[in-house]
Amino acid sequence: MIRAVLFDLDDTIVDTTRLAEMARRNAIENMIRHGLPVDFETAYNELLELIAEYGSNFNRHFDYLLRRLELPNNPKWVASGVIAYHNTKFAYLKSVRGARKVLLELKKDGYILAIITDGDPIKQWEKILRLELDEFFDDVFISDYLGVKKPHPKIFKRALKKLGVKPEEAIMVGDRLYSDIYGAKQVGMRTVWFRYGKYRDRELDYLDYADFTIESLEEVPKIVRGLNNEEKERSDSEVHAD
Amino acid sequence: MIRAVLFDLDDTIVDTTRLAEMARRNAIENMIRHGLPVDFETAYNELLELIAEYGSNFNRHFDYLLRRLELPNNPKWVASGVIAYHNTKFAYLKSVRGARKVLLELKKDGYILAIITDGDPIKQWEKILRLELDEFFDDVFISDYLGVKKPHPKIFKRALKKLGVKPEEAIMVGDRLYSDIYGAKQVGMRTVWFRYGKYRDRELDYLDYADFTIESLEEVPKIVRGLNNEEKERSDSEVHAD
Repeated sequence: MIRAVLFDLDDTIVDTTRLAEMARRNAIENMIRHGLPVDFETAYNELLELIAEYGSNFNRHFDYLLRRLELPNNPKWVASGVIAYHNTKFAYLKSVRGARKVLLELKKDGYILAIITDGDPIKQWEKILRLELDEFFDDVFISDYLGVKKPHPKIFKRALKKLGVKPEEAIMVGDRLYSDIYGAKQVGMRTVWFRYGKYRDRELDYLDYADFTIESLEEVPKIVRGLNNEEKERSDSEVHAD
Repeated sequence: MIRAVLFDLDDTIVDTTRLAEMARRNAIENMIRHGLPVDFETAYNELLELIAEYGSNFNRHFDYLLRRLELPNNPKWVASGVIAYHNTKFAYLKSVRGARKVLLELKKDGYILAIITDGDPIKQWEKILRLELDEFFDDVFISDYLGVKKPHPKIFKRALKKLGVKPEEAIMVGDRLYSDIYGAKQVGMRTVWFRYGKYRDRELDYLDYADFTIESLEEVPKIVRGLNNEEKERSDSEVHAD
């Protein structure tokens, strides 16, 4: 009997990839508008490389970009990038299509809901609070805060313990086959791979750990209901067989 | 003959004190709304103390606030503070009453305009660009970028050199008697103390260095015009006396 549905945050509940791409493009455009003497494609590709190397939570993307482009350190250009990046982030932060509807449906059906995510705890909470999604979730587990990252079993075990459910009573929904699906399966949870965003064709080596693959979040309530009905029928027939 | 008017940024061109107070109040309110178990006055006063001790550019105000209040490190509360702080900052960032009109008037009269400010270069440029004030200024000098802070004569001298004017051809307008007025006077500039914001009754030991004291920015064009007319009359009468 499934009692808890656990979700990853980025590219599962929050439309992160789309947002980050828009924010980065707008940042470069605004830097050029304020005098950055480089064409868009050169600067944008350099920024993507830099982010790939230093990580998306590195907080000096724009001044490092100037270094990479062998330009002088100009705080006006850096500020232009920062402003456009933040404006986009705040204006276009959106939940994934169908996420709110699905959460409401699951909530009404009485399921325990939680988030398990990697990333900077303050930034992750910022997304949840800005989208006013916090009321949907019974708890939020952020790996950087707990000191273990997905797919480490510890983060899943701690979440299940805190929520008071057994692994077989929980299902994990996430966009990453490695951290979400392989991770949850290791501790005995059911798994739904949400094939979405930049990981939709990656980490396919771990596809076997996915019990279900979906292209729309709106499949989740059906899957959970289906699992619970199956189990009910099975136990009914067992009772009947006694 | 005055040819250049130099302005301080915070509480001279940008209404910083008012904005910071609103942003901090809203941050505390939002933290309490998201469960911070402390009354407003306690938390707000603790935050002000912390800012006084660590400086306003310290970037961990809200997690240090939790430490000072002997509360657990809760990223949800920190994020609540950060969100409200940023939202306020972006929504309420305003220029000082009359600033834009004065800049336009001086610009039309052909004066060279510049900013000389302390503070983090990216944050200072962010204010200028968000308010779209950059087109008014021929140059912006930010002490943290140059490595010397007001009232050090070097920053004033560098600005004058870059702008191509002599000290006696320049006038400094600022809200701080120590850093702006005493600083500019040391290198031989004229000075206008703008009595505004949290420094309106402070650093009065340096009052003698102010050639003019104003309560409204709109006095600036009159003062500059007055000085130039005086000088013109003086040189006319000298010519006449020959």
